[in-house]
Amino acid sequence: MTSQATDGTAPTAADAAGSADAAVEHGFHVFDTTLRDGAQREGINLTVADKLTIARHLDEFGVGFIEGGWPGANPRDTEFFSRARQEIDFRNAQLVAFGATRRANAKAADDPQVKALLDSGAQVITLVAKSHDRHVELALRTTLEENLEMVSDTVSHLRAQGRRVFVDCEHFFDGYRANPEYAKAVVRAAAEAGADVVVLCDTNGGMLPAQIQAVVSTVLADTGARLGIHAQDDTGCAVANTLAAVDAGATHVQCTANGYGERVGNANLFPVVGALELKYGMEVLPEGSLREMTRISHAIAEVVNLAPSTHQPYVGVSAFAHKAGLHASAIKIDPDLYQHIDPDLVGNRLRMLVSDMAGRASIELKGKELGIDLGDDRALVGRVVERVKERELQGYSYEAADASFELLLRQEVEGKARSYFRTESWRAIVEDRPDGTHANEATVKLWAKGERIVATAEGNGPVNALDRALRVALERIYPQLDDLELTDYKVRILEGRHGTDSTTRVLISTSDGTGEWSTVGVAENVIAASWQALVDAYTYGLLRAGVAPAE
Amino acid sequence: MTSQATDGTAPTAADAAGSADAAVEHGFHVFDTTLRDGAQREGINLTVADKLTIARHLDEFGVGFIEGGWPGANPRDTEFFSRARQEIDFRNAQLVAFGATRRANAKAADDPQVKALLDSGAQVITLVAKSHDRHVELALRTTLEENLEMVSDTVSHLRAQGRRVFVDCEHFFDGYRANPEYAKAVVRAAAEAGADVVVLCDTNGGMLPAQIQAVVSTVLADTGARLGIHAQDDTGCAVANTLAAVDAGATHVQCTANGYGERVGNANLFPVVGALELKYGMEVLPEGSLREMTRISHAIAEVVNLAPSTHQPYVGVSAFAHKAGLHASAIKIDPDLYQHIDPDLVGNRLRMLVSDMAGRASIELKGKELGIDLGDDRALVGRVVERVKERELQGYSYEAADASFELLLRQEVEGKARSYFRTESWRAIVEDRPDGTHANEATVKLWAKGERIVATAEGNGPVNALDRALRVALERIYPQLDDLELTDYKVRILEGRHGTDSTTRVLISTSDGTGEWSTVGVAENVIAASWQALVDAYTYGLLRAGVAPAE
Repeated sequence: MTSQATDGTAPTAADAAGSADAAVEHGFHVFDTTLRDGAQREGINLTVADKLTIARHLDEFGVGFIEGGWPGANPRDTEFFSRARQEIDFRNAQLVAFGATRRANAKAADDPQVKALLDSGAQVITLVAKSHDRHVELALRTTLEENLEMVSDTVSHLRAQGRRVFVDCEHFFDGYRANPEYAKAVVRAAAEAGADVVVLCDTNGGMLPAQIQAVVSTVLADTGARLGIHAQDDTGCAVANTLAAVDAGATHVQCTANGYGERVGNANLFPVVGALELKYGMEVLPEGSLREMTRISHAIAEVVNLAPSTHQPYVGVSAFAHKAGLHASAIKIDPDLYQHIDPDLVGNRLRMLVSDMAGRASIELKGKELGIDLGDDRALVGRVVERVKERELQGYSYEAADASFELLLRQEVEGKARSYFRTESWRAIVEDRPDGTHANEATVKLWAKGERIVATAEGNGPVNALDRALRVALERIYPQLDDLELTDYKVRILEGRHGTDSTTRVLISTSDGTGEWSTVGVAENVIAASWQALVDAYTYGLLRAGVAPAE
Repeated sequence: MTSQATDGTAPTAADAAGSADAAVEHGFHVFDTTLRDGAQREGINLTVADKLTIARHLDEFGVGFIEGGWPGANPRDTEFFSRARQEIDFRNAQLVAFGATRRANAKAADDPQVKALLDSGAQVITLVAKSHDRHVELALRTTLEENLEMVSDTVSHLRAQGRRVFVDCEHFFDGYRANPEYAKAVVRAAAEAGADVVVLCDTNGGMLPAQIQAVVSTVLADTGARLGIHAQDDTGCAVANTLAAVDAGATHVQCTANGYGERVGNANLFPVVGALELKYGMEVLPEGSLREMTRISHAIAEVVNLAPSTHQPYVGVSAFAHKAGLHASAIKIDPDLYQHIDPDLVGNRLRMLVSDMAGRASIELKGKELGIDLGDDRALVGRVVERVKERELQGYSYEAADASFELLLRQEVEGKARSYFRTESWRAIVEDRPDGTHANEATVKLWAKGERIVATAEGNGPVNALDRALRVALERIYPQLDDLELTDYKVRILEGRHGTDSTTRVLISTSDGTGEWSTVGVAENVIAASWQALVDAYTYGLLRAGVAPAE
């Protein structure tokens, strides 16, 4: 594999404006379709604002092409294209409009759907074309010949209007199995009409790498067309299928951020780019972009409102996390013994997990990570392992609650818990009024610096009300709490086992502007669990602020 | 690929008893290590009872080998082996104990860790051996020669005790790159000492399929040993890497249920078996097992207390779910146009998703699925699409709440909402008492059949208290509610965007013994959202019971 530059690596002002002629005609294409095919994922529902934000992230990451949607197919996509052109100054990417070949027995020039593509102003257009004979007959209800006409006519028309055209051959691999000559005829029709890239799509995602590689090689040899690959993950091989196509000579890969897409999903942009850059040694992103990969993956997950996949290759929070005692001891010697790349290369980091499977080695490493020297006190480390075991049996999880773990660790090291206040009792009331509005009120009764404080507050929910009441109660004694803000709140119902009642685990993230920390609470109900996590969150915040314990 | 039988396909009484000699020495091995390597996954913490339940599921599924853990390494694993032998009558699988080669400069016969393996009573033992020269020197701190001795001596000793031995060559592929001759020497030492299978492990998961295939082919040709593959998913290629090894001649695949494992995870048992059975045409499971795949995947996720991955190949609830309008129209013609296999083959099903991306076609299909004929009333379907759009903007999701969608659909069809009672108001109080106990009390005020009812109840949490109060209020008028049970309760915090307050989505699953349904509620606080989902849950339950609306 020789190093290659993407279309996006050396943009000119004209590129940014999206002029096809200015675009480099060669080089490797990283083509993102998160906003079009990715949006088909179950659970994703993007507003125009979401699409604009994601487009900015993808452009910053440095993909060469961003497929924004199907202008004309729905008002949202039409609005996206007009706003994207006005609101986004693309640095690396060109905006691509997706659409279909013209209707059967008509002229592309008269087809309103084709006109909408031109009206979108996108300088690059991806046309989806049928390449599986059965689909032509059953879904398009036209003849194989007419389908070829539809491809040539539509591509030629768009080229004549000065647009750059990519053609997605839908169901190409199934079609090739059923009728290889026809499938190749579609590729030729597209290429001869002026398509810059013909993308072979495994639309149903049923293929395996060996099949992809064989078909791509043959089609490349037989047609000479520039080929791209669009893989779906139904066999769990979308990334490998994409790389197999590259091995066979494809120079255009279609992916989605975090692998979002219909059914199981699409080829995941991040492991595909990670492999091309770090395993193949290709330069498919602008210098330095790879280090942004983890941040951008999580930022996009945030926008689509899905929790980032913790176990995603390269970018998942677990991707470089170790809890095996065996590994932990080896990692103390040399981290590279147990990681395939340096996590820094993709903006991720090595993490030692604290769990009852982790032996002393992990606890010691974690202590170092937190800057707490456990010295050679084996008894102390043993006690910590025991406490963690016992708490995890109750449902606590310290893997995602570093701050709660640090408080536990300090308690063992210092012999007593850090305490800035003592809770006497609290109460939360949620009331649904006849007029449909809700009242959320909480009262806390606590002791701080020998003083008994009772405070009541309202909130938009019971936990928010408790949070506010706690702040009202403590603000005079601990003004530092003003700087703290709850940044995330997660609830997990731990299924009751063997008929026992279920318990609730709450994870809270808190920020003081300079750093963020997570705390955990577990109880038989969500409010009580939230209270525990809140108390840890504020205790840790005061600890960070260097406030001396008062109790 | 020719069809082959696994060790597990034709078990004898002796197999079930776990005798190595009785085990078929040839055939293809499906080797599961969920209970050992899979348990390394962040967030998994298995009790002995959990491990026994998972072992039963895996044996029922029909894997040939179940690696249960490392007896002697921790009390849990030791207890698991003794209880598994007494409590489980294995039909298909043989239980495997995992351990390491003996210490350096000692005798295997005197090594307590090796003795623990024999004491476990497991007739099959997997030994992990170092095959990367750097690991031998840095992690084992011994010589390359002594490491070979450790392999031969330990394997011979276990064979002499009548055990069947597999050897996991840790970091084989990285080791092969660094020192191919030494890596192969370890394979030879294991095979010559009597190991039945030598498993090449991509421990750091950094490999790609082409590399795996090349190395496995060469090692097979050079050593003649029977080879297995153990792949980790750090490049997102574990399934493809496993299949690449099979293509190169490996006849033993190590996988974990749902791909659980350290860092990103291990090769996922289900897509690996799915590909071998459905794409390669191999018979690696007992007749009929494949149809249990989806159920078993979800059952194991339940035991490990992780939500099943909705987008897992073959078995995810989204694996055969469609929401693209384009696809929906084609699926009306022929489902096979848009799925790579018939979902029935793996016990999964085709689902049409209702979302604002879904056009009329999906709504019509969904109506059919629910047995509600929308006829050709285009205006009606249009209104439903509009309602769904509007509600999804507020945060509702009908994809996972069929019952709430059916109520919405019926409301449009019947012109008015199904209503069995009308809420006037409700109140929930959670109190943390000085003694640390909690009081959860709820009061509901509602109207049913013209009667005003006020009821109060306590529960283990505020939602449970509301649920009970609602039942108390309605039990006399609707005795059918006695049959309803809440089977699952999920809370999702929808991040507030652009500084707006976050909203909460609650999904509730309810069962009446004969069927289960899901309902959704969305509000600014978890209690109010839960109330909405509860009301839908009971309304749908009464509808199912054939009760006539009262309001």
